[in-house]
Amino acid sequence: MTTDDDIMDATFAALCKHGYADLTMQAIADEFEKSKSLLHYHYDSKEDLIVTFMEHLLENFLSEFDEDSDDDPLEQLQRMAEIVVGSDEDDGPDDVHMALLGLRAQAPYDEALREQLVRNDQHIRERIADIVRSGIEQGRFRDDIDPEQFAAAFRSAIEGAQSHDVILGPDAPTETALAGIETFLLEGLTDDGTVEQTA
Amino acid sequence: MTTDDDIMDATFAALCKHGYADLTMQAIADEFEKSKSLLHYHYDSKEDLIVTFMEHLLENFLSEFDEDSDDDPLEQLQRMAEIVVGSDEDDGPDDVHMALLGLRAQAPYDEALREQLVRNDQHIRERIADIVRSGIEQGRFRDDIDPEQFAAAFRSAIEGAQSHDVILGPDAPTETALAGIETFLLEGLTDDGTVEQTA
Repeated sequence: MTTDDDIMDATFAALCKHGYADLTMQAIADEFEKSKSLLHYHYDSKEDLIVTFMEHLLENFLSEFDEDSDDDPLEQLQRMAEIVVGSDEDDGPDDVHMALLGLRAQAPYDEALREQLVRNDQHIRERIADIVRSGIEQGRFRDDIDPEQFAAAFRSAIEGAQSHDVILGPDAPTETALAGIETFLLEGLTDDGTVEQTA
Repeated sequence: MTTDDDIMDATFAALCKHGYADLTMQAIADEFEKSKSLLHYHYDSKEDLIVTFMEHLLENFLSEFDEDSDDDPLEQLQRMAEIVVGSDEDDGPDDVHMALLGLRAQAPYDEALREQLVRNDQHIRERIADIVRSGIEQGRFRDDIDPEQFAAAFRSAIEGAQSHDVILGPDAPTETALAGIETFLLEGLTDDGTVEQTA
């Protein structure tokens, strides 16, 4: 692994352990096997490091949905919903999702972070729209779908369901939300109609 | 106005001014025209007060969507989406939505707050499901819709779009998300098909 990979791993570990509000360069250094001075050599501040970390999370996320993928477009979107909304386990939200919720709540007060989250949002919506366009070209999806509109609504729904999963914990309606997203958003993409098959 | 109404107004004002993380009983008292001791007489702590405040916000919200309303069910859901997702103005998120984002991020660490947000979530989803049921009974909506599944997906989508509006500020795709929610979720409720009319 490169030093950068090690730093990203240390940031992930520290974020899970401390949450975003209590994250410090020292907490990240404590998770980093190499020297603290090396960390400071690469990053001036926690804010600086977090922007790179969010970029790194985006790359990892998008690599799961390769543009040149031969996978069925509907299955790709189903997989994205499952990954974002989270597991179907009853053991509550995981630490990283709790930390990212706190981080997102800071964005309105932190311009560099907000700008990185804007870039992440644009890339993710663009990838969703690309999958929809590819589904339309393949004749798999209806040709009267607006890919950008669908991408914005779908991303809102999966992110909203993930946030509820974290905020409401064991009482979150995560499985019902995921089933609803599947039925009302994803099945609506195909020519077979919206709800008939599953009702 | 009753003392309780005055306290709720003072809490709203203090929350808008300070955000949730920096909210104190003193900050609320500063917005309260009556005495600070009266505030402490009614509420033991900030946590205690905030639970009542979230209950109060829920009541205000639900009163906009009266169960016995004669309004068209589709129009009621459209209005709910517009109210939750926020204004179409370019002036960024308002202070109360920023404060509520911070508050929700604290729920995983604050059991009384989490429990109140769970109750709010259940009530709001139940009201959405009631509107859908009423639309089905009136023959306005398709009769193969699962009201609970729809409610969970719709609530995730409108809350997700609102969160993005706050987190991403002026770069949030709020209008596109709202249009997508309308096209892909709301128009799918009617018998006319999902997208034909607007594409």
